[in-house]
This record gives sequence, structure tokens and C-alpha cells, in this order.
Amino acid sequence: MNQMTKQSKNKKVVVLGGGTGNFTMLTGLKRHPLDISVIVSMVDTGGSTGVLRDELGVLPPGDIRQCLVALSRSDEVMRELMNYRFASGNLKGHNFGNLFLSALEKSTGSFDKAIEVASEILRIDGRVIPATLEDVQLVAYLEDGKVVRGEHTIEYQDLKNLKKIVIEPGIKANPKAVKAILDADVVVISPGDFYQSIIPNLLVRGIPEAITKSKAKTIFMCNLMTKAVHTDGYSVADFTRRIEFYMKGRVDFVIYNNKKPSTKLITRYAKKGERPVKVGKDLPKSKFIGGDLVSKKIAKQTKGDLLKRNFIRHDSEKVAKIIVSLL
Amino acid sequence: MNQMTKQSKNKKVVVLGGGTGNFTMLTGLKRHPLDISVIVSMVDTGGSTGVLRDELGVLPPGDIRQCLVALSRSDEVMRELMNYRFASGNLKGHNFGNLFLSALEKSTGSFDKAIEVASEILRIDGRVIPATLEDVQLVAYLEDGKVVRGEHTIEYQDLKNLKKIVIEPGIKANPKAVKAILDADVVVISPGDFYQSIIPNLLVRGIPEAITKSKAKTIFMCNLMTKAVHTDGYSVADFTRRIEFYMKGRVDFVIYNNKKPSTKLITRYAKKGERPVKVGKDLPKSKFIGGDLVSKKIAKQTKGDLLKRNFIRHDSEKVAKIIVSLL
Repeated sequence: MNQMTKQSKNKKVVVLGGGTGNFTMLTGLKRHPLDISVIVSMVDTGGSTGVLRDELGVLPPGDIRQCLVALSRSDEVMRELMNYRFASGNLKGHNFGNLFLSALEKSTGSFDKAIEVASEILRIDGRVIPATLEDVQLVAYLEDGKVVRGEHTIEYQDLKNLKKIVIEPGIKANPKAVKAILDADVVVISPGDFYQSIIPNLLVRGIPEAITKSKAKTIFMCNLMTKAVHTDGYSVADFTRRIEFYMKGRVDFVIYNNKKPSTKLITRYAKKGERPVKVGKDLPKSKFIGGDLVSKKIAKQTKGDLLKRNFIRHDSEKVAKIIVSLL
Repeated sequence: MNQMTKQSKNKKVVVLGGGTGNFTMLTGLKRHPLDISVIVSMVDTGGSTGVLRDELGVLPPGDIRQCLVALSRSDEVMRELMNYRFASGNLKGHNFGNLFLSALEKSTGSFDKAIEVASEILRIDGRVIPATLEDVQLVAYLEDGKVVRGEHTIEYQDLKNLKKIVIEPGIKANPKAVKAILDADVVVISPGDFYQSIIPNLLVRGIPEAITKSKAKTIFMCNLMTKAVHTDGYSVADFTRRIEFYMKGRVDFVIYNNKKPSTKLITRYAKKGERPVKVGKDLPKSKFIGGDLVSKKIAKQTKGDLLKRNFIRHDSEKVAKIIVSLL
């Protein structure tokens, strides 16, 4: 190990995220000698995770599982097992890794302990930290007085006239999450489902405050695509403005994609009302860092999956390199 | 390690079994420095295992899981996880360890590989070997022409007029099972559900032949209790005669219990038509070894379990000591 890598080994990176965008970023970051902590929002109620929350009264395992797999040093067999989805019978649509975390939570009586044991079995580098350790829901309040409860219900809700979005009950952050942020050299806000996975981390009481208090640099990794009825027409600057609003402070750097995806992919996404995020003009180069960040690989939908997944992904290695260059 | 333990470390013990009686015996044996292989019959169609076979088309995981847990060096958390049963929702009655083996079989495409990976994760001492690696069923043919298919259906069938009991299709034993028997110093036939778990091992083509060919001593560990409509009124000699019939040869030793269980337990069992196995008279002492083998601990039914379990168990340590003394 040379002097450079020794130095960056000491760098503590905290990633705020949840979902697929987060997974891609972690996959890239873990190839670098960094001390990684991921803080995962706990509002997921969709798919296999939603069914487990309802039926077993567990905390949402899905995003935690994705982060564990991303940071795992286990061989391919274990990683495939964790992502395996049952394709028939009563178990159809359930992800094995989700069942694994939920059974661990039930048998140990603690979600925290469940993550600890799973981290050991999956031999993960770093830490996966739930933003909260209590049963919370994402709730959207609209200008017309309508109240929409639950992450999965909000999925289909037009948020153009969003008055406020909150986590209820308004409990405090997991102390481990706060500590990780306070100790961090850099806090990266992951790309992902904006109002369902990314913003929720910043809605947890104590998280924005810890970011403000911490000496960590802040990096916002902007999404590649907008999402119908949630982030329609958002530009890089629009995304950034919202992040800064919920973070209650300015981010130091914004990384964004400036290369158009292929026409084929654009057409496919346009059918769902999703479009490439517009770059806009006059972004100050000292803060906004653009690059060709779209992965050349196209992801596939897994058989039996209850949710639709994204096909356009960030190039994990390119994104990681930019982040490392900012440390 | 002294000279004695060094010697017995080299002793290769093969246990033929399946089910709870087997679990108890393995728990005792693993405290001794032995090289243990368990051969598990693959006809189970009951409870969580039966549902998984039906819905996912997997091989029966239940007995394999019990053996893996018995031989595991993992801490209590892992062992509890493997035995954890979901108690609500669609997953109700499913055992996590069964889901684990079935998901591994599905994701790796091989039951053999699934056991290999699970053995590593659970850090087991020894080997767990399925008697066959194909989808087989236990079938009972009765004198009156009736044919009863499936282990779970046979559970409720009066076997007084059993003509023959077979495994269909009549495929060959797993070569790993044959090899283990040929290399063994001792083959122990476990106690357990007699016609549903124990005899089925001996019905697999190649298993009795391997026992005959092997230089291994053979020990039959007799059940504590009879089972209604299956082994009503069987004495130690009756059980032994049946084992020898299906094994196509004589066993060298029979270990049996000669101490009556408590009246409370006897009464509880009598309601189900199950009674302590009678010792009978004139058992030659050179072959039949009696002892006070009932465990003082009374096992409990697990919440959510789809099957009724036994409460009277062998004392695992006493049984293991007798077996070791015969090596």
C-alpha cells in the first residue's frame, strides 16, 4: 500500500441513501480504500418489504439488504442468495435477503442486532446504519389539504402541490447515524427515488443538524432521470435546491451527468413519463461537476420481482472516481 | 489432546437418520472427537418442508437443516435463526432454515451445492449427506391392495397390514452416502419416526448393500416410544427385527432404554396412543445394551410449528457415551 492509499483509507465516507442508485454508488466506492458507512431511510413500504412490514411487524429490510450486498466481500453465491426472489407459491415475490433480515430481527428481537449478524455473515466492509430504529411512515401533505400516508402510496401521488413531506412519528435519528455523520470526512447524498428514498433521510430529526455540525464536505450525486408526478421537469439545479432545503444548508459539490443516454433508453423511459435530468445553464464549475456518468451496461428486471426497477444506471466506477478526487 | 482422544478422532461415524431423534443423537456425538457423517432420508413431505416441495419443487430441506444445526459450531444466534418459525402472515409455519436451504438450492441450481454453502456458513463439523439427490416419494403397499403415497399421508395410515414399503422411483443412492458408509468405522441407525424417517434410508438402493460391504460395526439406537398405527406394541426385539429385515443383515449392537419415563409423560403420550417401547425378555447382553436413557429435560413445542413434536427425548450425552464405548 503506497502513501496515497494509506491516506485515503483513513477517509470516512458517509452515504445517505436507499434503493438502487445507492447500490450502484456503493459498488463503486467499495473498490477504493475508504471507510464507508451507509445511512438508510426506513420508510420503504413497497414490494416484499411492504408485505413483511404488514404481516410480521418488522422494520423495512429491503434497502438495508441492498446495502449489505453492495458492501459484501462474500463470494457470488452468497450475494445471489441474498438477492434471490421466490418465483412461485405463497413465497412468490419475496426476496430471500429480506426474509433473512426479518427472521433475524424476529429471532434476536432487535433490528440492530439483525444487521450486526448479517454484516458478519456477509463479511461486509463498513457499516450499514438505519436512519431510525422505530416504525415510521412517510407522509405527504398537499396544498389542497390531502394527506397521503406510506411510501408506496406516495409513489403514485402527484407532488406538484406538495406542502410538506414528513416522517411520522417525528422521532429522533438513530444515534449511530448521527455519530457517523459527525465523524465523517465526507457526506454523500446518493441518487435514488427522490421523495421516497433520498429526501426521507433528511426528514429524520437530527440528521440535517448533524450534517451542519460536522466538518464533512457534502456531495450531492444527482439523479440521471426525472420521475413522473414527482420530479417532472426538475433540472440539476432544481434537485440541488430541494436537497439544500431539506438539508437546511448548502452542499459543497454536486455531481451530475451531462451525457444523453441512448435514444432507445430515452424512448423506453418516456413511456413512463421519465426524462433525462436537464443540466441547465450557468452552473458554477466550482460546485457543479459534470461528466459522462451513464453505465454502458443495461440492468435487467429480476423474475418474480414485485417492483419495477430502473434500467439506466450510473457508471459506478466513474462516480466513485469523482468522489475520491474530491476527498 | 491425549492418546485416547487422538485415536477416537480418527473414528468415522456414519449416522443414518432424519428428524428429532437424530438431532438429539448428533448433539451428543459432536461433543466427542469423532468424524461424523449423517445420511438423511429424503422422503419428508410434512409441514414447512412439504409446502416448499409442492410450491417450489425443491428437495426436502427440513431434516437436512436439523442435522446442520446439530453439527454447527456457530453461536446461539445462528442456530436460533435456523430454527426460527414465522408465526404470522403468508409465511406462517415456515421455518427460516428451510427457506434458507430452498433459496440456496434455487439460486445455485443444486441441492448438493446448497448443503455445501450452508455447511460453511453454519461452520459444521462433519458432513450432512442426502441419501438421494432426486425427487422421491415414500410409498406403502398394503395387503388389501391399497397404495398410500407420500410420507405425510402415510403418517395417518395403519401399517398393521403393510405388504411392502418402498421409495419411488427406485433410484440409486447418492454416491457420497455410499462412500461414507464404505469408509466408516461404525454405522449408527438413529432413533426417530420409524417408517417415515429411519426405514426410508434403508430403502434406497445401494445403502443396505454398502452397509453389508463395509467393515463398519453397526449399532441400532432403538426408539423410546411406539407410534400409534405404525409401531403399536413393538418391543425392542420387534424394532430390531424390522431394521435387520430392511438392512438385509444383522446389526452388531442395539442400544435401548430400560427406564420407564415419568407417569406424567406416559399419560400425555398415551392420549396419542404412544407407549414406552417394551424391553421384553432374554435379550442377549452381548448385543443388546440397556440403560437409563431418557432425558430429564422436557422439550417444548415451538410457536407456529405446523407439526406436533415429541416431548420425550433421549439423553444425548448418555447415548453418545455408550456409542463411543463401543468404538
